[in-house]
Amino acid sequence: MKKIYLLILLALIGIKVSLAQPSAQTDPDIYVCGPCNGSCDNLQFDKPGKCPHCGMVLVKTKLSDFKKQLALKPVTICFYLQDGVEVLDFAGPMEVFIAAGFNVFTVSKNYKPLRAQTILFVTPDYTVDDAPPADILAVFGGDTGPGVIDSTVIAWIKKQKVQSYFSVCTGAFILGKAGLLDNLTATTYHLQIENLQKAYPKTKVLANTRFVDNGSVITTAGISAGIDGALHVVEKLRGRAYARGVAEAIEYDKWVPENGLVINK
Amino acid sequence: MKKIYLLILLALIGIKVSLAQPSAQTDPDIYVCGPCNGSCDNLQFDKPGKCPHCGMVLVKTKLSDFKKQLALKPVTICFYLQDGVEVLDFAGPMEVFIAAGFNVFTVSKNYKPLRAQTILFVTPDYTVDDAPPADILAVFGGDTGPGVIDSTVIAWIKKQKVQSYFSVCTGAFILGKAGLLDNLTATTYHLQIENLQKAYPKTKVLANTRFVDNGSVITTAGISAGIDGALHVVEKLRGRAYARGVAEAIEYDKWVPENGLVINK
Repeated sequence: MKKIYLLILLALIGIKVSLAQPSAQTDPDIYVCGPCNGSCDNLQFDKPGKCPHCGMVLVKTKLSDFKKQLALKPVTICFYLQDGVEVLDFAGPMEVFIAAGFNVFTVSKNYKPLRAQTILFVTPDYTVDDAPPADILAVFGGDTGPGVIDSTVIAWIKKQKVQSYFSVCTGAFILGKAGLLDNLTATTYHLQIENLQKAYPKTKVLANTRFVDNGSVITTAGISAGIDGALHVVEKLRGRAYARGVAEAIEYDKWVPENGLVINK
Repeated sequence: MKKIYLLILLALIGIKVSLAQPSAQTDPDIYVCGPCNGSCDNLQFDKPGKCPHCGMVLVKTKLSDFKKQLALKPVTICFYLQDGVEVLDFAGPMEVFIAAGFNVFTVSKNYKPLRAQTILFVTPDYTVDDAPPADILAVFGGDTGPGVIDSTVIAWIKKQKVQSYFSVCTGAFILGKAGLLDNLTATTYHLQIENLQKAYPKTKVLANTRFVDNGSVITTAGISAGIDGALHVVEKLRGRAYARGVAEAIEYDKWVPENGLVINK
């Protein structure tokens, strides 16, 4: 009897192997450039090594996965920037999303140039009156007082038909004002945890987490935590291997994806 | 005999205690706000707790050290930004230096607004013709080709009378062109290590270090490594405790000061 079982088992293994082989032939391992936001991101190679165009180490992947990656819809992210916005709050995620090959544009209340953190003189691409649609709307901290984030801005944020909202630092107060944090879990700059909780009692505000993802609303902790939150968005849309490639490209060596809280993908 | 030694020893301890006591009275422990770049940075408290103005946890220090800190000359840093400059290359150090209370201004070749990384529309404060003096001149990567960093820019860089030069990422190529890396050790973006070495054979180019400090020339690795390099500059000018306060303020939790190489303070 044992022999019969063994023969059946070997026959089954044989079937599995024969089934697997044609699949491996039609879906071979290939080597591709890590995300560098250059045209070489679309090239494939049959041997490991370095990309002859940008010098990045080639990454092994399945041809089918690479084809899926290329067929993905481009992601467009709107950066709302106010006068007094904190520089690294927006510049960190901007670097991450550009490195990931996403489309990024900036919007402000009007075309008047703004001073990021009183230093950097920035002119927005669009205003709230003429901004094109986006997949993600991102808001940032720094000055988020009523003088710069007024009812016009809040009304504009509320009417956006985006897949998700993303805030860095005290940008969470802007989402709160727009009623977008009600009954959700959120985070903000470490010195503003208690204030956000007081201002928006329907929201569960957490300290000690780099970001909180509720599915359609992602909030991050302060300033440099925006980089982690943006890498999380890339991971969510393009997979962890791709996000790791972006982190390596921008030399954010110490990225720990698990430092955030994912409530709902 | 033993008793006599013991008495002498006790007498010496007594002298030490009596000498130490007046000193402790004139130089007591005080509590100060961590660096938050607000006016509360200048306040002192006699008990531990949180700053009533900005909410930061108060840090224990000696009154004499605090007075020395307040008496320090303000540091001024010139950010040279070219068309095509990488966003996080300059925005990371800008955030760090502003948080440290340093003065920061931006300079470009002319007043024409530039596109940082093709996305962010920035207008410089000054041009190479009218920029005020600075203590540190900082240059950054992204597009550093001859079209944007030409002989006018190189001549301007060379004639600056600064205490130190600071580069992030491929900004090292700009310092190299100006002859500022000759006979020094340097680093750059991880994919450009070999190219920098080929272009400037008199320079010892190192991989796998977040920054290299030669004393008057500091170069950092790519993109986000500029944050580490800037924190190193803050540490050099204001001490490690102060730099740690800045890292905490911007939530750059994983700062490891030892990840760089200091050749000459």
